[in-house]
Amino acid sequence: MIDDYMGLIYTSIRVKDLKKSVDFYTKYMGMKIVGSRSWVPGEKIVMLLAKDSGQRLNLMHYSKGCIHYAAYKTGSEMDHLMFEVDDAKKLYDKLIEKGAPVAMKLWEEKDFAMGFVKDPNGIWVGVKSGRS
Amino acid sequence: MIDDYMGLIYTSIRVKDLKKSVDFYTKYMGMKIVGSRSWVPGEKIVMLLAKDSGQRLNLMHYSKGCIHYAAYKTGSEMDHLMFEVDDAKKLYDKLIEKGAPVAMKLWEEKDFAMGFVKDPNGIWVGVKSGRS
Repeated sequence: MIDDYMGLIYTSIRVKDLKKSVDFYTKYMGMKIVGSRSWVPGEKIVMLLAKDSGQRLNLMHYSKGCIHYAAYKTGSEMDHLMFEVDDAKKLYDKLIEKGAPVAMKLWEEKDFAMGFVKDPNGIWVGVKSGRS
Repeated sequence: MIDDYMGLIYTSIRVKDLKKSVDFYTKYMGMKIVGSRSWVPGEKIVMLLAKDSGQRLNLMHYSKGCIHYAAYKTGSEMDHLMFEVDDAKKLYDKLIEKGAPVAMKLWEEKDFAMGFVKDPNGIWVGVKSGRS
């Protein structure tokens, strides 16, 4: 272990359609845009913040021709992104109503609910409420 | 937008070898184990915290026979995890020395350095220091 300050500052996921992913995470998942940038031509980065928890997520989009461009390929590195909400059933139902595919059906107990949908890229997104 | 409290609480990545990934993120990347749990048989979750930034990362391991088990497949959903450190060159060199594969060579300027290695699963891990 090195004695420097160090720390994870964000997770970056690759997206196929920037607008669809920005809409999903800002309109439904409570994230706020805190910046955007580009390091190389054809790259667009939108920086998101979960204002209550302080967790950060960056959306990366590469156009054809960008040095980082590659055809989008579904893998398994990313297991899921988890969102804690007041009412998981309400949000889960809303996401399904808006067309998000079910990844794992809502599981409800007396003081707990958790379900998973797929984001616009197929990434599993969990919503849960109640005991952790 | 729903008016509930909501927020991303962590990113979960899938790992092939739990010990190798725990070692990588705790010994070299400054993360601290804050818990572990299991929801279903054959599943092991190790919860990590970057204590300076508050960002959280969960490592998920599924044994053969677990309902979530699948052969590990490299994809592109996960673009990278980024770590801000005091001396990116020092950490980058140490990671390479310890056998981490290079993903993108260190790029240095007067007051800035950034490089990428691959974690034990092939996920790109960035280290940077200086201006953001």
